[in-house]
Amino acid sequence: MLKKIPSILSPELLKILMEMGHGDEIVISDGNFPAASMAQRLVRLDGHGVPEVLEAVLELMPLDVYTDEPVGLMEVVKGDTYVPEIWDTYKAIIKEKEGDKKICYEERFAFYERAKKAYAVVATGETSLYANIILKKGVVV
Amino acid sequence: MLKKIPSILSPELLKILMEMGHGDEIVISDGNFPAASMAQRLVRLDGHGVPEVLEAVLELMPLDVYTDEPVGLMEVVKGDTYVPEIWDTYKAIIKEKEGDKKICYEERFAFYERAKKAYAVVATGETSLYANIILKKGVVV
Amino acid sequence: MLKKIPSILSPELLKILMEMGHGDEIVISDGNFPAASMAQRLVRLDGHGVPEVLEAVLELMPLDVYTDEPVGLMEVVKGDTYVPEIWDTYKAIIKEKEGDKKICYEERFAFYERAKKAYAVVATGETSLYANIILKKGVVV
Amino acid sequence: MLKKIPSILSPELLKILMEMGHGDEIVISDGNFPAASMAQRLVRLDGHGVPEVLEAVLELMPLDVYTDEPVGLMEVVKGDTYVPEIWDTYKAIIKEKEGDKKICYEERFAFYERAKKAYAVVATGETSLYANIILKKGVVV
Amino acid sequence: MLKKIPSILSPELLKILMEMGHGDEIVISDGNFPAASMAQRLVRLDGHGVPEVLEAVLELMPLDVYTDEPVGLMEVVKGDTYVPEIWDTYKAIIKEKEGDKKICYEERFAFYERAKKAYAVVATGETSLYANIILKKGVVV
Amino acid sequence: MLKKIPSILSPELLKILMEMGHGDEIVISDGNFPAASMAQRLVRLDGHGVPEVLEAVLELMPLDVYTDEPVGLMEVVKGDTYVPEIWDTYKAIIKEKEGDKKICYEERFAFYERAKKAYAVVATGETSLYANIILKKGVVV
Amino acid sequence: MLKKIPSILSPELLKILMEMGHGDEIVISDGNFPAASMAQRLVRLDGHGVPEVLEAVLELMPLDVYTDEPVGLMEVVKGDTYVPEIWDTYKAIIKEKEGDKKICYEERFAFYERAKKAYAVVATGETSLYANIILKKGVVV
Amino acid sequence: MLKKIPSILSPELLKILMEMGHGDEIVISDGNFPAASMAQRLVRLDGHGVPEVLEAVLELMPLDVYTDEPVGLMEVVKGDTYVPEIWDTYKAIIKEKEGDKKICYEERFAFYERAKKAYAVVATGETSLYANIILKKGVVV
Amino acid sequence: MLKKIPSILSPELLKILMEMGHGDEIVISDGNFPAASMAQRLVRLDGHGVPEVLEAVLELMPLDVYTDEPVGLMEVVKGDTYVPEIWDTYKAIIKEKEGDKKICYEERFAFYERAKKAYAVVATGETSLYANIILKKGVVV
Amino acid sequence: MLKKIPSILSPELLKILMEMGHGDEIVISDGNFPAASMAQRLVRLDGHGVPEVLEAVLELMPLDVYTDEPVGLMEVVKGDTYVPEIWDTYKAIIKEKEGDKKICYEERFAFYERAKKAYAVVATGETSLYANIILKKGVVV
Repeated sequence: MLKKIPSILSPELLKILMEMGHGDEIVISDGNFPAASMAQRLVRLDGHGVPEVLEAVLELMPLDVYTDEPVGLMEVVKGDTYVPEIWDTYKAIIKEKEGDKKICYEERFAFYERAKKAYAVVATGETSLYANIILKKGVVV
Repeated sequence: MLKKIPSILSPELLKILMEMGHGDEIVISDGNFPAASMAQRLVRLDGHGVPEVLEAVLELMPLDVYTDEPVGLMEVVKGDTYVPEIWDTYKAIIKEKEGDKKICYEERFAFYERAKKAYAVVATGETSLYANIILKKGVVV
Repeated sequence: MLKKIPSILSPELLKILMEMGHGDEIVISDGNFPAASMAQRLVRLDGHGVPEVLEAVLELMPLDVYTDEPVGLMEVVKGDTYVPEIWDTYKAIIKEKEGDKKICYEERFAFYERAKKAYAVVATGETSLYANIILKKGVVV
Repeated sequence: MLKKIPSILSPELLKILMEMGHGDEIVISDGNFPAASMAQRLVRLDGHGVPEVLEAVLELMPLDVYTDEPVGLMEVVKGDTYVPEIWDTYKAIIKEKEGDKKICYEERFAFYERAKKAYAVVATGETSLYANIILKKGVVV
Repeated sequence: MLKKIPSILSPELLKILMEMGHGDEIVISDGNFPAASMAQRLVRLDGHGVPEVLEAVLELMPLDVYTDEPVGLMEVVKGDTYVPEIWDTYKAIIKEKEGDKKICYEERFAFYERAKKAYAVVATGETSLYANIILKKGVVV
Repeated sequence: MLKKIPSILSPELLKILMEMGHGDEIVISDGNFPAASMAQRLVRLDGHGVPEVLEAVLELMPLDVYTDEPVGLMEVVKGDTYVPEIWDTYKAIIKEKEGDKKICYEERFAFYERAKKAYAVVATGETSLYANIILKKGVVV
Repeated sequence: MLKKIPSILSPELLKILMEMGHGDEIVISDGNFPAASMAQRLVRLDGHGVPEVLEAVLELMPLDVYTDEPVGLMEVVKGDTYVPEIWDTYKAIIKEKEGDKKICYEERFAFYERAKKAYAVVATGETSLYANIILKKGVVV
Repeated sequence: MLKKIPSILSPELLKILMEMGHGDEIVISDGNFPAASMAQRLVRLDGHGVPEVLEAVLELMPLDVYTDEPVGLMEVVKGDTYVPEIWDTYKAIIKEKEGDKKICYEERFAFYERAKKAYAVVATGETSLYANIILKKGVVV
Repeated sequence: MLKKIPSILSPELLKILMEMGHGDEIVISDGNFPAASMAQRLVRLDGHGVPEVLEAVLELMPLDVYTDEPVGLMEVVKGDTYVPEIWDTYKAIIKEKEGDKKICYEERFAFYERAKKAYAVVATGETSLYANIILKKGVVV
Repeated sequence: MLKKIPSILSPELLKILMEMGHGDEIVISDGNFPAASMAQRLVRLDGHGVPEVLEAVLELMPLDVYTDEPVGLMEVVKGDTYVPEIWDTYKAIIKEKEGDKKICYEERFAFYERAKKAYAVVATGETSLYANIILKKGVVV
């Protein structure tokens, strides 16, 4: 633990956030996401929800302003009536930390492809469905 | 995540609990414990308190009945007036899961020596002081 | 060994089952399957039959309900008159643990290709022929 | 699997048995033995009992005739009234494979020290208590 | 060394033979074969001829009966008048151990491609030319 | 790079500072210190002076208050008339960040022994002599 | 540190410069460049600007004279009005060390592709934008 | 060092020469060749010229007689008037050791592609230009 | 395989012989020697006898003339009436290659201790008893 | 290769020289020195003599002035009448590069012990006897 750094961030996750550069992406995944089979670099944060991780990450990492949609979510599968209410929490956190941002909704398997190219995946224990989120890092000035 | 297994336990921690045998010890440490410099095997559970980890571990792992004191705590340093109230929580959890157990109080540096010999250390983000606890695994029948 | 966990599951296999997410697949193979040349992650359980491993795995891991056929078997090669009676045992175990499930029958070499993409292969010592089975993990809620 | 080789022996265990030379020792441990913290080389055979492993090992590996006591067992701890009936099974297997052999009974912690020096430990899922056995390899002529 | 196992087989080679499954292939190559640049797994048996290795391997490993040609040899290069008399020795060994088997003759570079896909290559010191042989493992029942 | 984190700290150094616990020590060494032969974990910051690294480290890491002397310096070797004026800079930085602290002056070879036990050594390019400094981490609350 | 070698060059960077041959390329990147996700070999020089690294590198490494454009820069993205004044500094350093050289301006993503093929990337903490530079090594005679 | 073996050959280089089989190639490169970025296996012999290495290699390794051109050289780049006189030395060494051999002249980038497929590259400190040579190993009888 | 080098020597063994310097020792062990548990570096030559390996090694490696006893053998255990006739073969080979040498006879466990300190152990399949031999390397001039 | 750096120094050796700090030692050994069994870090420069390596090293690395004897040589063994004339060459090189230095003569086995503690050993092919030399690095200012 250190001063000024949210204690939910592990040493390895902080190292990864620092290593990432402009345009690199990170996925914060829910507990059912196949993180281990897709991640180029995997950080586990078992037992936590996505919102508290998202908030801690955005405390240190800016979103990309060189793209229209620096945030991605996984579209609800056709025929599924589930409403992912957790998205409202995400939007509130993003708005507070980085201002209004447009969101890109990816079809399930397109989301998987994008996750495989991401710099890292953070696997949480979030139990809400469709709760995975992908963030594109911006420039630190 | 799996059925029947507390979701706070990471895959690696569960593997370690299974590998441990009769008499092996595990430390659940607070956020200020020098876990990385002492652990033979280190599992990080940043952002969690010790009680929820202790509860999950005891759901699966029995304590040793071949010894008088299967549980160890770090004695308050002489001159320090801090009262570690979290110990009451620990005792309640242990009593519920494994029944009444006698506790061994180790002086700070003796606790360190014992931690270095333990099979593993689980590093939490617990902010209470003197919140480290050591458990000796029993026989599964 | 731990409380509540079938003792036939090795620490490494349990870790793998926990790491797997929604849609990841695992193969439980018989003793003649070329497991080592195909597996991305290989767990050996020499000397055991497939049914006892299948039963233990399904005690902890749910099958996928987002697909029609969460279970796969290897079709008998054309011209071979062998009748894999062990399949009835599999069906009974699956029905008891997860309810009725449709099964996908894969031609031998198609089964191989699918096994190569699976998250892991568990190599047993099962001596029945055509006794390999593939399972797709579902969501844990 | 191969012709002539008991299928309970894993590829890695067979490799280890071949690598061992005159005087090297191997432990076949029960499910509660702290195998992972003591073994120089660890082979897991979860879900099996000790007798079937012992029988398979002695099918290929001779015991040492240059020592009086090529077999070791863990003495029952003082005050414990448990009678390890499984020892009779061991003696019958040894007698059948290698003839009458004298047995060395080691006190619990002395057994641990000897296990740490052994070439390998095979961890079974044997649930009988005091069921660990140590074998010293002889000369193959 | 162990009872019942030909002493020319190294621990690592025996492990590889056990790991192989139905349909996996192994090459026993002569001393001039580019084994190190082609093998996925390389076992060296310097100083030995191919026939004694072939005999030892077939003592434990059955050939595949699900294919017409479970054995492959490297065709003599066009224009080369060399007659590989060692092939007669091979055929006698195979006949004795596994009965009559049809042989597939591969053009030199086709043989190389097949060797690259084999599970393992055993590099001997055989000085006869065109003395490489490839074997497809069968089912152990 | 990240918001709120001094850009002179490398990802690996930040990870190390986070991993350290109460009582762990870190050395910030000058360019002539035999860092590679002594460090348990080595972080290179070639081309930088010690003061800017010291300042950045103390922005995030508190000093230990459970000891009288949380800071160590290397004593000038007897007979050497060099006056390490850089120490005044260190004292000013420490005072500003953590308040007045007592300093322990270690003889050259005693300093080496202590450095070998430290959790990490940061090797700078500082050209002043006797410019090595050792810091003991405190509790984060 | 050594005589004659600029102290800003780390041991690993010097090793890499020596290993490079005629036609190999090296990127000196600014602090926002996604260096870790693109580099085949990554050297971090956090906290430094690009100009001092460029100057030190060219003190030891000649540019290629077998190509017209041995230096590459990242073109300003269309629509962006930023003027990278740091380029003038680069040109002055190159002129002083190696004489007038033509520069190749690469579109942002083309620059990324070229960086992925480079022998190494040196990640600095340079805060100017569009400050990445790629150098092609020449012949040492 | 050993009897009968030229002392310029390092232990690793000799091992590589032994591992190579019929048709495998080795490059002996000059000091400016981008050896580290191209070699599958790299052996450094800094400070030596190519001729003494070539002579030592051919003392132990025969050239291939199953191909017309067992030796390759890098063609002088068009427009370059450099005359690689060192080639005469190569031809004399080859003639003395292996008799007259036809040489294949490869265009610069074609030579690079061939070097990438070679079993190994030996990087010398040869300062002559166009001094790289590639050898195809023959059969040892 | 290479010209001038006995084909029984593996690439790795030759590399080891070259790496050894004045005073380093190598053990050529029989098939029952506990080579894997004692060797700092282990080379297997399964299926060969000691004499052919000894002869090949002495073709390249000189014995030490700075010591009285550059050769060691394992003394017959007291009470054992076995006569190791293979020693005569050893003496004849040594005499032919290196002239008359005095031999040091080591008690069984003293031999083990010396073997543990040797640079390498070559494990053969020699079936004679007491057939282990240790050689001290001399100076190559 | 790089400008200003003697081409006999390999990339790895230069890295090691840079990593070394005040008081670290390096051995330049002759061709018969048991370098591989003693070195903590081993750099091979086969085929070279010690003098050219010594000269190149001292071009970049200063000797220690905080000790009386920054240079060590191996004393001639008692009874040996060999006169190591190469020492005069060493003294001339040292005098030219670093001025007059006192030399410490170490008995053979004491030299070995010191070599084991050195930061690195450079193994040359020097054929003179007693030609090993040890250097203690000084401060770079």
